[in-house]
Amino acid sequence: MTAMQLGLVGLGKMGGNMRERIRRAGHTVIGYDRNPDLADVHSLEELVGRLEGPRVVWVMVPAGAATQSTVDALAELLEPGDVVVDGGNSRWTDDEKHAGELAAKGIGFVDAGVSGGVWGLANGYALMVGGDAEHIAKVQPVFDALKPEGDAGFVHAGKVGAGHFSKMVHNGIEYAMMQAYAEGWELLQAVDSVTDVREVFRSWQEGTVIRSWLLDLAVNALDEDEHLDKLRGFAQDSGEGRWTVEAAIDNAVPLPAITASLFARFASRQDDSPQMKMIAALRNQFGGHAVESAK
Amino acid sequence: MTAMQLGLVGLGKMGGNMRERIRRAGHTVIGYDRNPDLADVHSLEELVGRLEGPRVVWVMVPAGAATQSTVDALAELLEPGDVVVDGGNSRWTDDEKHAGELAAKGIGFVDAGVSGGVWGLANGYALMVGGDAEHIAKVQPVFDALKPEGDAGFVHAGKVGAGHFSKMVHNGIEYAMMQAYAEGWELLQAVDSVTDVREVFRSWQEGTVIRSWLLDLAVNALDEDEHLDKLRGFAQDSGEGRWTVEAAIDNAVPLPAITASLFARFASRQDDSPQMKMIAALRNQFGGHAVESAK
Amino acid sequence: MTAMQLGLVGLGKMGGNMRERIRRAGHTVIGYDRNPDLADVHSLEELVGRLEGPRVVWVMVPAGAATQSTVDALAELLEPGDVVVDGGNSRWTDDEKHAGELAAKGIGFVDAGVSGGVWGLANGYALMVGGDAEHIAKVQPVFDALKPEGDAGFVHAGKVGAGHFSKMVHNGIEYAMMQAYAEGWELLQAVDSVTDVREVFRSWQEGTVIRSWLLDLAVNALDEDEHLDKLRGFAQDSGEGRWTVEAAIDNAVPLPAITASLFARFASRQDDSPQMKMIAALRNQFGGHAVESAK
Amino acid sequence: MTAMQLGLVGLGKMGGNMRERIRRAGHTVIGYDRNPDLADVHSLEELVGRLEGPRVVWVMVPAGAATQSTVDALAELLEPGDVVVDGGNSRWTDDEKHAGELAAKGIGFVDAGVSGGVWGLANGYALMVGGDAEHIAKVQPVFDALKPEGDAGFVHAGKVGAGHFSKMVHNGIEYAMMQAYAEGWELLQAVDSVTDVREVFRSWQEGTVIRSWLLDLAVNALDEDEHLDKLRGFAQDSGEGRWTVEAAIDNAVPLPAITASLFARFASRQDDSPQMKMIAALRNQFGGHAVESAK
Repeated sequence: MTAMQLGLVGLGKMGGNMRERIRRAGHTVIGYDRNPDLADVHSLEELVGRLEGPRVVWVMVPAGAATQSTVDALAELLEPGDVVVDGGNSRWTDDEKHAGELAAKGIGFVDAGVSGGVWGLANGYALMVGGDAEHIAKVQPVFDALKPEGDAGFVHAGKVGAGHFSKMVHNGIEYAMMQAYAEGWELLQAVDSVTDVREVFRSWQEGTVIRSWLLDLAVNALDEDEHLDKLRGFAQDSGEGRWTVEAAIDNAVPLPAITASLFARFASRQDDSPQMKMIAALRNQFGGHAVESAK
Repeated sequence: MTAMQLGLVGLGKMGGNMRERIRRAGHTVIGYDRNPDLADVHSLEELVGRLEGPRVVWVMVPAGAATQSTVDALAELLEPGDVVVDGGNSRWTDDEKHAGELAAKGIGFVDAGVSGGVWGLANGYALMVGGDAEHIAKVQPVFDALKPEGDAGFVHAGKVGAGHFSKMVHNGIEYAMMQAYAEGWELLQAVDSVTDVREVFRSWQEGTVIRSWLLDLAVNALDEDEHLDKLRGFAQDSGEGRWTVEAAIDNAVPLPAITASLFARFASRQDDSPQMKMIAALRNQFGGHAVESAK
Repeated sequence: MTAMQLGLVGLGKMGGNMRERIRRAGHTVIGYDRNPDLADVHSLEELVGRLEGPRVVWVMVPAGAATQSTVDALAELLEPGDVVVDGGNSRWTDDEKHAGELAAKGIGFVDAGVSGGVWGLANGYALMVGGDAEHIAKVQPVFDALKPEGDAGFVHAGKVGAGHFSKMVHNGIEYAMMQAYAEGWELLQAVDSVTDVREVFRSWQEGTVIRSWLLDLAVNALDEDEHLDKLRGFAQDSGEGRWTVEAAIDNAVPLPAITASLFARFASRQDDSPQMKMIAALRNQFGGHAVESAK
Repeated sequence: MTAMQLGLVGLGKMGGNMRERIRRAGHTVIGYDRNPDLADVHSLEELVGRLEGPRVVWVMVPAGAATQSTVDALAELLEPGDVVVDGGNSRWTDDEKHAGELAAKGIGFVDAGVSGGVWGLANGYALMVGGDAEHIAKVQPVFDALKPEGDAGFVHAGKVGAGHFSKMVHNGIEYAMMQAYAEGWELLQAVDSVTDVREVFRSWQEGTVIRSWLLDLAVNALDEDEHLDKLRGFAQDSGEGRWTVEAAIDNAVPLPAITASLFARFASRQDDSPQMKMIAALRNQFGGHAVESAK
């Protein structure tokens, strides 16, 4: 392995752990964050100045405005031959724009979808990247440091945007898998004959068709709170689930299970369902109370 | 028109109104109900005794045990050549059983799906009937009295069971149509630019592709309570929606919209969603709190 | 009624019929179309020149580039106090952009969702419009000429964009209503006991909860081709269905029935289903053929 | 471990492999099958005669009539204190009936859902069992022989029926998980930017939220046939998926993702979609061809 230098912008929970994992692999990481308590340098300028060329700067800030302004700033600060990696949760449609803006200055761009959450520091981060092979090659030592051991966990998925697109689809699949276990759990809980649903879930961890890491997490959760009484049935969604459905619509691909999973989350956040009010109103109209006919 | 006699068992809101409409058409109706305040006779025996043969007895009692015991009793009391009509909401799979039981005594059987609700007395009841033509012919004057004016509103749908099956499918379609309007209403309510959703609905009553009687009812409901604030988003379901999905499964027919409508009602009745607790728990596991890995 | 002048751009099947209906009501319509066989004038310039101010120009061309270029041209040709109506199928998100572009020149803008299809000439067109009341007032005589008789069929739905948004939701509802009847029809066709599905549909036209104009059309279609043998199960979708789902996602509104209807159309257009290949492949892997385990 | 005797009825692919795995664990298995090439004995009578009491007989034949007739025969042949295990794919609602029939003779009953497919011989079979603890205890050495190594892979899920119910829900979850990957795969294949979908799937095998045994199988399948060109998008379904949805309906539990997965399989088996013919017909009616209005 050749030790390399990396500039890392954004040192939140995710970025901070990634810095640690990359350093453990023997590389040098110079980190910048708006929060000076987290940062190694005081400014993007200083960060760029501390790196020897050709530089690699990894952007790990919220998608949208924060990523855009960071890319804009780096386009001014970096030099031809340098490479920017967007490892945040950007929408894949932003990548081509960012790549074009940087290419105009001779700067390379790689989009990297990163999976791993709080487990990534210990287990490694799965990486799906898009862009030109020559730009990816410059970042490869860092990708190798971040990825899990074993053959899997890293892919050059295709052109610019393919990394975030693949990560987005990963999250769409994740939604439907979570929904699958959740539906099964609710159904098992609903019948009297099954007296130990948690142990049914635990038993599935070996030898079944549905064993998975998410199933392991479900068992962990049930071990902490057997009937999940401490939780409300309320689920947020991040952008990726929505974007997955939108990409499917753009491509005329039917995604019934993933979309059902997204909609179930939307519904979970409603105190009362407007559409069900309308259903109730219609039932009243034709079934219950005499009203004037509109025809 | 030839005036005929009808025995009518079950004089609730629906049966009582039907008795009235049949009498207005000039027929004789002898009604029996467990509630003596509603009944014309004191017992099924008396009802059967008051009818001249060949008799027609219309059963309008709750599906399941009440219908079964009434059919059982009529099988003992009636004579060959008589006809029993089941106009209740029986599951179509019960019809063949009832028909067989009565046929063993030489008694005919007709299943009749009845639509109309509180509007039926004034507007007529739509009737979908199943059975042999000879049995249906004996009831035809009553069907003619009950049905709305015009060519539509009555059909001999097929064999025994076809009447209830057709009515069941009618209700399945009804679920999805109601859901369609309800989804559209919620979406219109959700955006700022549409400032008068009720008037949008009202405008649709003429000239649009989606004009319908249900739309008229929706406008009625919005005229009574513009934002449906007086209602909770809570919707019951009757057996027919469930049976429609089960019939679809038996016949490997995909019913995505009707089933989505049924499930939306199920979800509307849950104070908290167990499956969404599991989604929340899984999100916690991989995103938030460090826990021991099960693998 | 005060007779008024209208400039109408786009004289295809829809625009041509609308010109006819507006003229029948006594107004003057000067129509322009790229196809000189359809047009009253040779150019947009001529059209604008022939109208007395304040002018009203109705744009009835395909959404997207054609509408944009027409709006751009009219922004140059028209004068302060004139009004442009976009009656095409533009995405509601385009309306604010067009309105802003025109407002910069002092020109008003109204977006109008138009429903009616081939029936509109005879029955009238349902109109959902968005924009400022003062701009709408200038077009009102034309709206009155186009709309069906009766109280319904026209609505000022709200701000700029609200007309197209309401029409879009109308189409979303239409998708799910069509799907509802289609699912019911398939299920009825699937069982042996129902021997005359067409007559069941016909019977529903009176007295039922599900009577509607779409049901009337379904009966028409079955009268022409009882089992729809002449058709393939292949359904296009227009932009509005897709945009409805996207708007729902933007607003976190669950639309399960409408979305299921859209996805059913997507699937109908696939010769073979890629996703079902994967299902088949997975079934093979765990059930049928011995393969090497990846773990 | 105490070596025990087991009677095993049904020696097809599944039963034959199970016999082998139980024997490898040191137990005695006497197998009967209608096919004499597979059987150790010539009749159920001989099988029962060869076992020392208290006997354990495992039934591994197709659900429905074959299982029923085997249970009937064993009810005649066995003695009080013996135990029958139904390890087939019986519907959970059959279990209570079988248990009651056998209990009348003093014979115990255990229902066992078995997962593992062609991998079970090598890896072990996951077992979900229902019934009384005393009956299960008599079979435990065989359960221990069949199950995978490790803590998971076996559960006493609850009362009679709970084993098959849990296995049924397992399969319902399996449907939705398979659908999740399948939807994701189709979407990735649909876009140009992702140039190597197989490698994206492979990369997910480590470090991602969606890693699972099914994902490993998907990678195996793609390694054999990168674009699944050799397969048709055609997927059968077994009873368990259907029963899961029916159980959900009985318990008013919404199962949108699992049901969508089942319906996708139904649709995949249709050469042409009847419901989409109706959609096409309706589109024709209002959009294309002038027809007579029904109203």
